[in-house]
Amino acid sequence: MEEWTVKVNHSAVKKEKPKTDQLEFGRVFTDHMFIMDYSVPLGWHDPRIVPYEPLTIDPSAMTFHYGQSVFEGLKAYYTPEGDIHLFRPEKNLQRLNRSNDRLCIPPIDEAFILQAIKQLVYLDKEWIPTAEGTSLYIRPFIISTEPFIGVAPSHQYKLIVILSPVGAYYKEGINPVKIAVENQYVRTVKGGTGEAKTGGNYAASLKAQELCAQKGFTQVLWLDGLEKKYIEEVGSMNVFFKINGKVYTPALNGSILEGVTRNSVIQMLQYWNIPVIEEKLAIDDLYQAYLDETLEEAFGTGTAAVISPIGQLSWENKDLYINEGKTGKISKALYDTLTGIQYGREKDPFDWIEKVTKKNTVKQ
Amino acid sequence: MEEWTVKVNHSAVKKEKPKTDQLEFGRVFTDHMFIMDYSVPLGWHDPRIVPYEPLTIDPSAMTFHYGQSVFEGLKAYYTPEGDIHLFRPEKNLQRLNRSNDRLCIPPIDEAFILQAIKQLVYLDKEWIPTAEGTSLYIRPFIISTEPFIGVAPSHQYKLIVILSPVGAYYKEGINPVKIAVENQYVRTVKGGTGEAKTGGNYAASLKAQELCAQKGFTQVLWLDGLEKKYIEEVGSMNVFFKINGKVYTPALNGSILEGVTRNSVIQMLQYWNIPVIEEKLAIDDLYQAYLDETLEEAFGTGTAAVISPIGQLSWENKDLYINEGKTGKISKALYDTLTGIQYGREKDPFDWIEKVTKKNTVKQ
Ligand SMILES: Cc1ncc(COP(=O)(O)O)c(C=O)c1O
Ligand SMILES: Cc1ncc(COP(=O)(O)O)c(C=O)c1O
Repeated sequence: MEEWTVKVNHSAVKKEKPKTDQLEFGRVFTDHMFIMDYSVPLGWHDPRIVPYEPLTIDPSAMTFHYGQSVFEGLKAYYTPEGDIHLFRPEKNLQRLNRSNDRLCIPPIDEAFILQAIKQLVYLDKEWIPTAEGTSLYIRPFIISTEPFIGVAPSHQYKLIVILSPVGAYYKEGINPVKIAVENQYVRTVKGGTGEAKTGGNYAASLKAQELCAQKGFTQVLWLDGLEKKYIEEVGSMNVFFKINGKVYTPALNGSILEGVTRNSVIQMLQYWNIPVIEEKLAIDDLYQAYLDETLEEAFGTGTAAVISPIGQLSWENKDLYINEGKTGKISKALYDTLTGIQYGREKDPFDWIEKVTKKNTVKQ
Repeated sequence: MEEWTVKVNHSAVKKEKPKTDQLEFGRVFTDHMFIMDYSVPLGWHDPRIVPYEPLTIDPSAMTFHYGQSVFEGLKAYYTPEGDIHLFRPEKNLQRLNRSNDRLCIPPIDEAFILQAIKQLVYLDKEWIPTAEGTSLYIRPFIISTEPFIGVAPSHQYKLIVILSPVGAYYKEGINPVKIAVENQYVRTVKGGTGEAKTGGNYAASLKAQELCAQKGFTQVLWLDGLEKKYIEEVGSMNVFFKINGKVYTPALNGSILEGVTRNSVIQMLQYWNIPVIEEKLAIDDLYQAYLDETLEEAFGTGTAAVISPIGQLSWENKDLYINEGKTGKISKALYDTLTGIQYGREKDPFDWIEKVTKKNTVKQ
């Protein structure tokens, strides 16, 4: 880690915080943000915490034209004891650098940015909501800012971290959703950018999402872009299926995002001695398991929902009702244990939690 | 066309214009820009021409996170008589709306935006360079500006048009380039966003472009994302091959951008009674034609270069030298005729030119 210090420019005003029962996702932001610039030949420089405020960017900045950008998403949680927890934040920063590599964005110093995030969260800690299931969402992102409309990697970037207090994902307890298998649109394909957390993947997903919402579904289940045969992800989550006592999830293949929650679920299941299999999963085989009555549970995993049980899956006019549309046992156990660790209600056998304290040092 | 008028806020200062021999592509912008906003329930509103200046945008604006954006590129040319020409601008605005549809962005009024572009070009006409091969590049683009970090279509947008004087693409006359066939990375795939002019496609292309440049190539030739077998585009251009007296270009298939130059080249060849065939083109077949000595010419087409002859194509350690690395007859004739029409040196049998005049009415 390089020897940097973060200059802090305190906000003159403290904005009003939203009421706990009015918390939404991603609409309200805290008093401060972190910024750092990249240029040639300075590299990443001038790390600073400043009041949350609009950016001033040239209309020719590359990010507006050629989508060279990456982002991350993680959360800070208040424990009943008043500690502040981050959940495996180093995984997000490692992934940010993998995304950077795919998008030709210069790498960041992961340890330093983690320390900067902790400093920012600590400064705005009054914004971390305390009610059941609420948290502070942390959004690091990098945009290309060179004022040049040629198709080439930018020579200038901004790394920004903003914070948003978010409500409980499940207002009335964990609840199964209806998912439609997407047969026309494709999110990404091997050789593309699916492994990276970059805007274009999400832009590409909007159309399918809009059409499925019109038909009353919450999300789409993406099939692979090559054969439209193998299961990839569900919405912006990784996906798991319990079949005949074993848990299956699509193997990482270059077009699936490597979720931090996915990895945590796999470790947790192994810890519980439940077999987990990462492999290519054909939608036909899943349907066969359903007909054979061996498809026991299905769920998505991601930072926002943690575990999102799938109660109904629609595929080519067939409706699969999974576990009678109810939350399965494993889904529930995973949800309870993961959130238990995140909120500090359960012990953390994996050393996943990183505390945010006044000193904000990074765990060695 | 709705009844709108464009408010004009004149720039107090006139920036210094670059010297003709120092003109690059896309680094210098004119004195003014056009902006229009979209919101719910106002729709597109407040069209205005303002001094070229930085945008002030919230860091949570969707465009920075989820890449929901589209753009276009066209040019204004000065004729020897001092007329200002646009080349088939309505095609660009039609394509902008097709891109909008794919990206869940509300449609624009094509005729009105064309009129606004003409008004902007006319206002900044002193910026149109007059030297051989120079022009004023016009960049309309739309970004999603709602301050909300949820994955969903934005409810707020900005349409912006900026102008940049650009130098001659070929400083020493039209010149063949070296192209490498890309076997690993993919630009896009059927069901994705390849047909749309949206940032993510270009972000996805940077890595392959960077690697091929290191090996001394100008651009990559993209194969289809499914089988890595069929030819799609070359860099940010459509591609044509003359084989045994006939001209072939990949058929539009959902992942190829429908170029205005591509369409113009097809019409021009038909006008000359040269057979043009749009079909699936396997890279193996192209190689076979090379071995059979029937591959006579290859060239890319796009607004920037108009025609870019391909002198060398590298594919799996094989080097194809096309037309002895020289510009072919058809390539040259197409370049001369298209630029002739654009710059008003030749007559325009297709009615492709739209003049920019003080009144700036749109051709009916
Ligand atoms: C496309 C996609 N897949 C999966 C995930 C789940 O990843 P994680 O568990 O790290 O939140 C996310 C969200 O981050 C995502 O955007
Ligand atoms: C991916 C891609 N293909 C092809 C083209 C050529 O299109 P046009 O002839 O309209 O400039 C462009 C450039 O606009 C492009 O970006």
